[in-house]
Amino acid sequence: MAKLQLVKIGGNVIENREALADFLADFAALQGPKILVHGGGKEATQLAEKLGIPVQLIDGRRVTDAQNLELITMLYAGKLNKTIVAKLQALGCNSLGLSGADGNSIRAQKRPTDPIDFGYVGDLTQVNDSFFKILLDQGISPVCCALSHDGKGQLLNTNADTIAATLAASLSAQFEVSLHYCFEKKGVLMDLEDEHSVIQTLNKSSYKQLKAEGVLHTGMLPKLENCFAALDAGVAQVRIGSPKMITQSANYTQIIN
Amino acid sequence: MAKLQLVKIGGNVIENREALADFLADFAALQGPKILVHGGGKEATQLAEKLGIPVQLIDGRRVTDAQNLELITMLYAGKLNKTIVAKLQALGCNSLGLSGADGNSIRAQKRPTDPIDFGYVGDLTQVNDSFFKILLDQGISPVCCALSHDGKGQLLNTNADTIAATLAASLSAQFEVSLHYCFEKKGVLMDLEDEHSVIQTLNKSSYKQLKAEGVLHTGMLPKLENCFAALDAGVAQVRIGSPKMITQSANYTQIIN
Repeated sequence: MAKLQLVKIGGNVIENREALADFLADFAALQGPKILVHGGGKEATQLAEKLGIPVQLIDGRRVTDAQNLELITMLYAGKLNKTIVAKLQALGCNSLGLSGADGNSIRAQKRPTDPIDFGYVGDLTQVNDSFFKILLDQGISPVCCALSHDGKGQLLNTNADTIAATLAASLSAQFEVSLHYCFEKKGVLMDLEDEHSVIQTLNKSSYKQLKAEGVLHTGMLPKLENCFAALDAGVAQVRIGSPKMITQSANYTQIIN
Repeated sequence: MAKLQLVKIGGNVIENREALADFLADFAALQGPKILVHGGGKEATQLAEKLGIPVQLIDGRRVTDAQNLELITMLYAGKLNKTIVAKLQALGCNSLGLSGADGNSIRAQKRPTDPIDFGYVGDLTQVNDSFFKILLDQGISPVCCALSHDGKGQLLNTNADTIAATLAASLSAQFEVSLHYCFEKKGVLMDLEDEHSVIQTLNKSSYKQLKAEGVLHTGMLPKLENCFAALDAGVAQVRIGSPKMITQSANYTQIIN
């Protein structure tokens, strides 16, 4: 089975010009089939402010109304995605930017409005595996932004971590997939105040224990749930760590079943 | 040789929700390989105003500075392109949105700054024919926005009419290409005041004559130059007319050599 590297980067990499350049050079240097999934970052909030578009939060989570969906479509699928793709081309990496609507690549259904109406937010339903396979077989690296579609004409805001996990799981039928979640730390920390407290490996039982003890940062919990779901679905390897982990064998937490 | 329909739409179709829906239904219904190229329209100016980004004009032509390039990347490759692709998917047309950087599909070089510096504007140099062929062979319809790239990491604003003509010309080696320029009239008019004065066919010599006589609207001249260039390069058929022409055999001017 051919290997596939699936790398997710978030706002912390995208928002820093130098960090992004470093990361893209590393990503371009990866051999073999690879996919990049990118999040959005804080720029959406800044752009909303500039355009006078109100941002509504429920329980600390953003509501995606029509205006905000338009804004993130401009930002994620437009500016960020195309900037990344153009830079990868310059590095000799033939890449192709995708929203979920492109090539019908990633389908979702709009999240039910009950109990909370989060607006135009998608829960993933289907990955177009054969389309990704065709691109990868041509030596093209898909670059996915955090947008899916419902097949009825509606784009939907979708969590980039979940897109990465779902893509990895779905493509595991055809590839031996390594899923890399890059973020601002060198791995999952035992102590947020101590950068050196990286947990080397985390399995379901140690996760449950650390979660129960309140050791893990709450922001890590959905990411870790995505990791275990990916492993359960047949993804060969899952890591959380610094963007540097994709070329170095260090600076990450290995998630195991 | 397989037939390929290449359709270009401009702002007048994109800005009108109903006109766009009508057009996309017609485009989705076209049988066989097809490509859509879309322009931007007036929304770029409106968005620039909202964001307080100054728009500089030289000889009535827009200068694309870094801020304006970012803005049109958001608008063209983000909002407009993805909205069109999502709607085509809903109509059963499997489409894929592209800037020129995606799949290294359309290359350009930055226009020389002498005699006039128009900023980040691209003059086309190369079409990745084999990439388009792969997509079309898979039944996927590329949807191209008015952005190319220079291969060195820079996106470039590029005239959508020129992209359409250059794509048509380049793909003529592999397809019998029909190029349709859709605009707000039912064809090239003898008299701008008279909607019924559509010229049925226009060849180079009648074009030269009408141009010399000042009959043709100056805005038509670059479009017609693109048409003749496409014919010279082997495009089988070129038409200028209403969006309705793609499904009806009416409402257009046929451009012949």
